[in-house]
Amino acid sequence: MKKFEVTFQPSGKRGEIHEEKTILEASRELGVQIESLCGGEKTCGKCKVKLLEGELSPFTDEEGKFISESERLEGYRLSCSARIRGNVLIFVPEGSLIQKHVVRKEIAGKQIELKPALISYYIELTPPSFHDLRSDCDRLKKALSQDYHLPHLDIDYPALLKLSRALREGNWKVTAVVWMDREILDIRPGHVKEIYGIAIDVGTTTVAGYLCNLGNGEVIATQSMINPQATYGEDVMSRINYTITHPDGLQLLHRSIIDGLNHLIKTAVEDARLSPDDILELTAVGNTVMHHLLLGMDPRYLGVSPFPPALHQLINLKARDLGLRVHPSANVFILPVEAGFVGADNVGVLIAEEPYNQDAMVLIIDVGTNGELVMGNRNRLLSASCATGPAFEGAHIRFGMRAAPGAIERVKIDADTLEVDFKVIGDEGWKSNSGKGDARGICGSGIIDAIAELYRNGVIDKSGRFKKELPSSRLILSDGKPEFVIARKEETSIGKEITITQQDVRNVQLAKGALYAGARLMMKKLGVERLDKVILAGAFGSYIDPEKAMILGLFPDCELKNVCAVGNAAGEGARMALLNRDKRLEADEISKKVDYMELTIEPDFQKEFIEAMQLPHMKDPFPHLRGVVRDEILNQ
Amino acid sequence: MKKFEVTFQPSGKRGEIHEEKTILEASRELGVQIESLCGGEKTCGKCKVKLLEGELSPFTDEEGKFISESERLEGYRLSCSARIRGNVLIFVPEGSLIQKHVVRKEIAGKQIELKPALISYYIELTPPSFHDLRSDCDRLKKALSQDYHLPHLDIDYPALLKLSRALREGNWKVTAVVWMDREILDIRPGHVKEIYGIAIDVGTTTVAGYLCNLGNGEVIATQSMINPQATYGEDVMSRINYTITHPDGLQLLHRSIIDGLNHLIKTAVEDARLSPDDILELTAVGNTVMHHLLLGMDPRYLGVSPFPPALHQLINLKARDLGLRVHPSANVFILPVEAGFVGADNVGVLIAEEPYNQDAMVLIIDVGTNGELVMGNRNRLLSASCATGPAFEGAHIRFGMRAAPGAIERVKIDADTLEVDFKVIGDEGWKSNSGKGDARGICGSGIIDAIAELYRNGVIDKSGRFKKELPSSRLILSDGKPEFVIARKEETSIGKEITITQQDVRNVQLAKGALYAGARLMMKKLGVERLDKVILAGAFGSYIDPEKAMILGLFPDCELKNVCAVGNAAGEGARMALLNRDKRLEADEISKKVDYMELTIEPDFQKEFIEAMQLPHMKDPFPHLRGVVRDEILNQ
Repeated sequence: MKKFEVTFQPSGKRGEIHEEKTILEASRELGVQIESLCGGEKTCGKCKVKLLEGELSPFTDEEGKFISESERLEGYRLSCSARIRGNVLIFVPEGSLIQKHVVRKEIAGKQIELKPALISYYIELTPPSFHDLRSDCDRLKKALSQDYHLPHLDIDYPALLKLSRALREGNWKVTAVVWMDREILDIRPGHVKEIYGIAIDVGTTTVAGYLCNLGNGEVIATQSMINPQATYGEDVMSRINYTITHPDGLQLLHRSIIDGLNHLIKTAVEDARLSPDDILELTAVGNTVMHHLLLGMDPRYLGVSPFPPALHQLINLKARDLGLRVHPSANVFILPVEAGFVGADNVGVLIAEEPYNQDAMVLIIDVGTNGELVMGNRNRLLSASCATGPAFEGAHIRFGMRAAPGAIERVKIDADTLEVDFKVIGDEGWKSNSGKGDARGICGSGIIDAIAELYRNGVIDKSGRFKKELPSSRLILSDGKPEFVIARKEETSIGKEITITQQDVRNVQLAKGALYAGARLMMKKLGVERLDKVILAGAFGSYIDPEKAMILGLFPDCELKNVCAVGNAAGEGARMALLNRDKRLEADEISKKVDYMELTIEPDFQKEFIEAMQLPHMKDPFPHLRGVVRDEILNQ
Repeated sequence: MKKFEVTFQPSGKRGEIHEEKTILEASRELGVQIESLCGGEKTCGKCKVKLLEGELSPFTDEEGKFISESERLEGYRLSCSARIRGNVLIFVPEGSLIQKHVVRKEIAGKQIELKPALISYYIELTPPSFHDLRSDCDRLKKALSQDYHLPHLDIDYPALLKLSRALREGNWKVTAVVWMDREILDIRPGHVKEIYGIAIDVGTTTVAGYLCNLGNGEVIATQSMINPQATYGEDVMSRINYTITHPDGLQLLHRSIIDGLNHLIKTAVEDARLSPDDILELTAVGNTVMHHLLLGMDPRYLGVSPFPPALHQLINLKARDLGLRVHPSANVFILPVEAGFVGADNVGVLIAEEPYNQDAMVLIIDVGTNGELVMGNRNRLLSASCATGPAFEGAHIRFGMRAAPGAIERVKIDADTLEVDFKVIGDEGWKSNSGKGDARGICGSGIIDAIAELYRNGVIDKSGRFKKELPSSRLILSDGKPEFVIARKEETSIGKEITITQQDVRNVQLAKGALYAGARLMMKKLGVERLDKVILAGAFGSYIDPEKAMILGLFPDCELKNVCAVGNAAGEGARMALLNRDKRLEADEISKKVDYMELTIEPDFQKEFIEAMQLPHMKDPFPHLRGVVRDEILNQ
């Protein structure tokens, strides 16, 4: 098959690519990070590039949906659609590059009792003699049994290989690292107490690692990165789809997260002046699809009703079997998943927040592309999953973008003038103070703010419709449809104004309606009238303004002071499991106890969903919004 | 560093080799199999080659010990000594090539109750539904638990990766292969019962594999090969030495046996029209050094007093961790070792012969480069190891060679004429019948025959000295020292006669004396006056003529009909362990029960050894040789 030279600008990356490959495929081969929210399915329009020289396959109707006539004449194409037919020079606009995320994976770092799975034991042995010809291995095991009451120890194969030399180098004084009182993972000459582990949160978008000293529990380095699987599809469904439509798709996705983790671990240990070999244990959380892809298990059946996972239980396996470059005997502990779409990340949240130890009726919302809900207390816990769609991540929103520099993350609208103030990621303080004009788009928390503010100030009504008759220069018409200007042209770096459209409002209503309806059905099932506490978890959840979220009706009414954001609780759960082995048992037990509720088969789901689409809700009272939102708005 | 072109004749193999490497090193790099009994230590003289063109490092005194002046002038060198200094053309005489062994690894193939560690279970599962959302893994485990009473099963990681697809391909009817009622190793769609395993005997010289159908216990292919470690040294001590003197020595030796096994397994499965992936279990035996090198464990401490092994116990590990190319979940079971020099091969012999289930007092001799002795019965078992030296393998014997085509393996001497008849490996029948003249040397069983016959016919006396005064044209003098001609010049293919020298007799006396003294000390320790049974085991032991061995005094007196050869009992033990898991427990128990006796520290060892050097012994009576050997000879 023929190959052609493909060159990308402005990076200058170039290489020989097989004829008929798409520009998107070429970009992956050459390491150019073109955004592809839909995974090359031609449905997101985020991968626009401009042909500067050469020829590509003809322009298609699908491309016409995202590329205007004038753009087409300039040479714009969707890189997932245009195929290589000769040598080409391609320009990738900044807006089509995967943005360096603002990493929002901070963990709370709660105090936790230190009880790691790995403990190092110092022992002094009697050397062999003709009267004591025991093998090195028996000698070591016997001493550990006698000195530390550790009978029936196994020894991992790589440790066995080091054993004889370590004993002699240490002059029969060694430190043995024992896992779960069960298996010897390492033998070190002399007295060496330091052992390290890393807790990993494999998010669909962002992956974070928390390197911990297992001797004192300290987090000594935090490292994060974009999940390298992102180039194969933005959300879990497009990644599942990629494994189905590409024969080597599963392997590619699996290898890409493993390679990514190896890189992340290397960076983290270098940060702490350690080597990968110092990592003796890893714990990991992730949603069910990330969990399956991390393990290399086929996720396709997760996408098919009734969505059973391949593996439900917690799993311990050797890092070497996964191809992770850490200590050759290192164990990987992956938290259990609850059900098809309620994953190990949710179990991480649970063991971090422990609703099962509380009397208060708690709702935990992990907002992401997929919304995960847990509700209950010490008596009972329910979990559910709702397809919120990617609106909260900035997709399907006209000026939506991820939480990257340039994204509007906070919005205030003045009740009298309807003038807008906003805060942009990367800037100090609000626009009214910074005076900067560098907004590029609007991210999830900004969208929630904006729509809540539009509602509170009567720009949109309870049903989400713009009140076209309002006298405001910010309420404009485009193709006869109303839009509200958040950032004026001169306040942006994209040469045009940033607006919220009627369609944007609709998409957010769909997303929040799904969450609210889910919570409502769970309350019904539990026979609960009101919530005592709402916890917003997840990378994105932590940045939501609780008040704005409640005005929007993201969740049922609750006392505002009891609505809180807890940061990356899934990652916190992984850290806790790393530092305290009892937390692993807790995870195992709770993952089995939580009742999973399949919302889509609940008879009331449609009705609840339709009612929950309204702002904040069609019928439900919001006593705690009294005084926050004017009565005439609330009583519409 | 400079490289030069090295070409070997007659094979024509050539390549670029770094300056200052030895010819022996070059031969290994280029795959020319030059014999090196001492492992390049310049002490065996077996690696002679002839320089045809080019230049090498200067001739050394060490070479002078093995290369005569006339040979030197012809260009002969020791390949372990001569170093590359320019492009060279090297001729390798046939006598310096590693000979294709006559593989003597037949196993008895005793009947054994079939109880393999692996069992395949057929199960029919209920597919998932919204009312039964268990994971694929839980579903499978539950069914195995319910249908076959197999609770608490683990699943090996590669099996987990296949699980979801196998369940669906089989339409929820699958076969699970379970190891030791403990771990699921494979899931196959539908009803598939066939499982296979291979029992492996890693000998110092020869490696054999017995491919078995675990469903019916049949051996469906037998394959053997020279242990590829042989190019790094003939015996265990030279291999230990190689790991000490070469920084990458351990890795080289480990890789070479693993590569060799991969090749052997591939050949065996192809023989049986299977694929390596069909092998789900391996069992292995080997002496302690082979055991350590197979595992990649440093054997250097086995060579240092008090010779403790790194590992004593049986070990199960994943074939993938060893780099064996079989089924990715295959288990490798390696039999336990007893003590420093009494290895897993000896445990294999024990579980094959079961002296611990007998009343008779048994002596088992596994004769090889290292002699291993076990003595006892159901009451008690002793084991010991004697350094017999390599005389029985043909080394340190003027015309000694391994059991290869051209080796004299049987010798008879006529009592009246002192004329000799012999049998050559590769020929039909005895020389007197075949009339062929193709002897190249003499192997272990031939040496034992020859010396026993020389003694029985009065050519040598009890002390091993030649009776120079005997009138026989076969008794000649060379440098004033007597030699006995076994094959006349015209009966050989080497252009000279094959003789037994006084030194050869001495070396055999040393070897047999060590074995006899060991047996005597063991009898003392057990308080035993006589042996009921002697079993000759091992590749070489099986070919010894029991009568000749007793005439020589290889072991104490015993009724001749109770002296028997059992073939490769170590391999037989490996096969038994493969087919019957109870045999593994038996191996574990017996390896702990056998009392190891370190002969060299016994106060009487020297005295016993000196007495045992005589033929058959200085003092011990041999009532069962009456009538076999003339009284005047026996009563010397």
